[in-house]
Amino acid sequence: MSYNLLKGKTGIIFGALNNQSIAWKVAEKAYAEGARFVLTNTPIALRFGELNELAEATGSLVIPADATSLTDLEMLFAKSMEHFGGKIDFVLHSIGMSLNVRKDRPYDDLDYSFLMKTMDISAFSFHKMLQTAKKLDALNEWGSVVGLSYIAAQRTLFRYNDMADAKAALESIARSFGYIYGREKHVRINTISQSPTMTTAGSGVKGIDDLIDFTDRMSPLGNATAEECADYCVTLFSDLTRKVTMQNLYHDGGFSSMGMSERAMHTYSRSLNCEECREKLD
Amino acid sequence: MSYNLLKGKTGIIFGALNNQSIAWKVAEKAYAEGARFVLTNTPIALRFGELNELAEATGSLVIPADATSLTDLEMLFAKSMEHFGGKIDFVLHSIGMSLNVRKDRPYDDLDYSFLMKTMDISAFSFHKMLQTAKKLDALNEWGSVVGLSYIAAQRTLFRYNDMADAKAALESIARSFGYIYGREKHVRINTISQSPTMTTAGSGVKGIDDLIDFTDRMSPLGNATAEECADYCVTLFSDLTRKVTMQNLYHDGGFSSMGMSERAMHTYSRSLNCEECREKLD
Amino acid sequence: MSYNLLKGKTGIIFGALNNQSIAWKVAEKAYAEGARFVLTNTPIALRFGELNELAEATGSLVIPADATSLTDLEMLFAKSMEHFGGKIDFVLHSIGMSLNVRKDRPYDDLDYSFLMKTMDISAFSFHKMLQTAKKLDALNEWGSVVGLSYIAAQRTLFRYNDMADAKAALESIARSFGYIYGREKHVRINTISQSPTMTTAGSGVKGIDDLIDFTDRMSPLGNATAEECADYCVTLFSDLTRKVTMQNLYHDGGFSSMGMSERAMHTYSRSLNCEECREKLD
Amino acid sequence: MSYNLLKGKTGIIFGALNNQSIAWKVAEKAYAEGARFVLTNTPIALRFGELNELAEATGSLVIPADATSLTDLEMLFAKSMEHFGGKIDFVLHSIGMSLNVRKDRPYDDLDYSFLMKTMDISAFSFHKMLQTAKKLDALNEWGSVVGLSYIAAQRTLFRYNDMADAKAALESIARSFGYIYGREKHVRINTISQSPTMTTAGSGVKGIDDLIDFTDRMSPLGNATAEECADYCVTLFSDLTRKVTMQNLYHDGGFSSMGMSERAMHTYSRSLNCEECREKLD
Repeated sequence: MSYNLLKGKTGIIFGALNNQSIAWKVAEKAYAEGARFVLTNTPIALRFGELNELAEATGSLVIPADATSLTDLEMLFAKSMEHFGGKIDFVLHSIGMSLNVRKDRPYDDLDYSFLMKTMDISAFSFHKMLQTAKKLDALNEWGSVVGLSYIAAQRTLFRYNDMADAKAALESIARSFGYIYGREKHVRINTISQSPTMTTAGSGVKGIDDLIDFTDRMSPLGNATAEECADYCVTLFSDLTRKVTMQNLYHDGGFSSMGMSERAMHTYSRSLNCEECREKLD
Repeated sequence: MSYNLLKGKTGIIFGALNNQSIAWKVAEKAYAEGARFVLTNTPIALRFGELNELAEATGSLVIPADATSLTDLEMLFAKSMEHFGGKIDFVLHSIGMSLNVRKDRPYDDLDYSFLMKTMDISAFSFHKMLQTAKKLDALNEWGSVVGLSYIAAQRTLFRYNDMADAKAALESIARSFGYIYGREKHVRINTISQSPTMTTAGSGVKGIDDLIDFTDRMSPLGNATAEECADYCVTLFSDLTRKVTMQNLYHDGGFSSMGMSERAMHTYSRSLNCEECREKLD
Repeated sequence: MSYNLLKGKTGIIFGALNNQSIAWKVAEKAYAEGARFVLTNTPIALRFGELNELAEATGSLVIPADATSLTDLEMLFAKSMEHFGGKIDFVLHSIGMSLNVRKDRPYDDLDYSFLMKTMDISAFSFHKMLQTAKKLDALNEWGSVVGLSYIAAQRTLFRYNDMADAKAALESIARSFGYIYGREKHVRINTISQSPTMTTAGSGVKGIDDLIDFTDRMSPLGNATAEECADYCVTLFSDLTRKVTMQNLYHDGGFSSMGMSERAMHTYSRSLNCEECREKLD
Repeated sequence: MSYNLLKGKTGIIFGALNNQSIAWKVAEKAYAEGARFVLTNTPIALRFGELNELAEATGSLVIPADATSLTDLEMLFAKSMEHFGGKIDFVLHSIGMSLNVRKDRPYDDLDYSFLMKTMDISAFSFHKMLQTAKKLDALNEWGSVVGLSYIAAQRTLFRYNDMADAKAALESIARSFGYIYGREKHVRINTISQSPTMTTAGSGVKGIDDLIDFTDRMSPLGNATAEECADYCVTLFSDLTRKVTMQNLYHDGGFSSMGMSERAMHTYSRSLNCEECREKLD
């Protein structure tokens, strides 16, 4: 099903790795809706991922770029504009990484150089991308920028670690820059706070399966999938949402507005009412 | 510009009065996007408004109904299903009225029978509509319901009076019922928190012009118009936003995320720095 | 331990029933901190409760009053001022009741006359109390009013039913009236969003035990008790919090800022990993 | 007026510079309430400030420390424990600085090494302090940590620049670390979101006077002063707020819950209705 919602629009999509990635699904969907775009990721991610396959399927150009490098970002926007013969309409930022998480440093034993890196990669890259785009005047009036976030920015989840602080900074940057880019070029900037999703990135987190089970039973509509997230992104890139800006938008089947569902409570209660389970609880 | 986003979908639109109404714009836009729908309002509003004109232009049926009356709502949903030969995909609730506002009762001198009426018309009608729809099984799986709200639900604006409490209740009902209707029928329920809009309803409020000037200068993208609100509603009725539920979504050019803009501050400061103005300030 | 934080202050405490009640603990604590106060509840609650015992222990006057009745409220404030020989410094509103909950009407089968009653008792009574106090000029400058609320106002919990909407309205009234009473008399109005507490009211709710277990394991400091809530109320009645107003203040051991704790996840996971439990899950 | 609320308690207060500083007022107030504490600031701030005067008046030890240096922090906590002969009960973090603000780099032309510094000084120092304290087991059970924040973390104010993102990160750290320190040691961590205050730091910001006028007229109780903030801090350090954690607490005379007050609107409207002013508006 396609509506030509993005017909004639051009974009840049950061962060697709393989066909599990949300950014990958966004690319497929944007393509189906008539958009042309550049795919970008770090050189190392390009080596391990399968981005060329996606580029072929969607007729896209791949431009390697480290989103923390101003030089790379300038080159990326310049080349993209050259490629399209004009300015860009939408950008997706789907980038996040924490060495503290990867190296199993708990939140009360952070390595601070890792923390700086977490912030630089997961949050400041968003600012750098926006600042570069604005300096090069690379985005069309009423363009749309979306960053992917997670509810850990508002509510603490054990093991999510310093990524929570990075997502809080990311959402703040969306507001701060949304004000400036909005008033000067009518560009809107929002974040989507997506259900936990079993991407390659997510699958590394210990215990993620059970958390996903929990959020699924808590959410009246169940967890949102990567495909559904792509659908939602498309509406935010389209001309139908021009006055939505500086928002963090939950795309999570209702999870963010739930205190306790019957299904999740039932599952939780089972272990309280099971003798064998109770013994193992602290 | 049309995308056929609502092709094959059927709906009920509450609250169109004349071509200033947001509900009116939603109807026009939904029609352009391929939807068929029933228009409804109270018998008295139908007499004073120009709904037949809209009905004609969009090939719609008009069914008079008082949204606080369960009997009327049952009749409305039953007739609508009969008319469409099936269930309904979307509903817009754009209803609000306060006799305390109309009769100039300040918030510290409320008439409590008026307050009950404010609540019944502006908030409980949303519950009654949902409860009736669910009892009659009138909505299709993955249907979408939108209620129109205002930021007064979160932040106090002088003169908005008991409508603030009604909007808070409205948004709460969207969450409470969104849980139940979501888990059982995958129906999603959201509210849109719209910029102040110069509708017939709004134009009666004293000093609304200056408030609209303020919110416009505060919002990086300016106030959202009724037409733009209709565009946004269409995305929420479409199949591209299926996992968004129980949310209050700001459609306000960024106002809700602003503390102070340069333009609004400049205007405010002028009167502080003008001798003539200063004399008139308290 | 006592600090004389409320020395010389006078108050009215609504809603104490027995020594499980939060209002009861607030009375004991306020007494220990040097306050004098009037205790009030409905005539029927006075019959079933043990309020006279508390009145004796704290040297308080008991004045029966239905908080939904303007006549009763006028009498209550007039008599209280007469009793103290002056105006009042603080008020606690700890009132809530839903016939829909009591009569087991699920949220998609509400009785609307019950809903009106839920609102009137649990939310509008707060407005009526404030409006009456203001008309009689019954509160001292920089007085403090606290209403007890619950996180259901923001996040849906199954079975909490229409009390969620009432709490949302209660918190909105605190803001709306807080603006007016603040600007005119410097009276501050806040709500405390307390952990679920095993009061007589709470103990009637089915499954409340397991929910309390969940929130306790989710909250890094555990659930807040009624005694701790009383401590917190005392700080809000004191002169040390004069510029806090129109706020909803979470007093919940951290629950409101948690997405998932290790302890709660562990308990939840047990039932997923127990064969016997899994069979019983849907 | 004093209540001995902090009798027997010991603390560390970061960030007092001169008698305009909020931290200075907190020290005076904590002293009056019976606390003993260590005062700390960077060596350079100590040279320019008047901290010795405060130390003398409150019988405090001054320990110079750069809050971004783990070595300094370890030394600070170790010496403080030695000084008190035991663990510490409360900590105030009142630290913030942006070179981008100081050097007039607008938000769309940030220097990224400055941004890193803003984050390190204004947000990560909070984490470093907490991590160091926890590693040294320097805080007593049920200890209390407060960081000073500002509403720019939620809503964009022009010129507040990258400090907004730093405050968002600060508040996130309060939550993330509040979970861990809470569950393991019952230490609570909160931020206070204070009215704009005319401190030495604030007075450097262009146009701050007019903003302060605006927030004062918006807030029903007027802006909160530094002294009032100190009062509020004392309640959070006391034993009466033991179950409040992971919260951002607005201490702002109601500003955060206001959409528009009559007084602020009146001032704003004046310039719209003054011919001379209108000419100067954009």
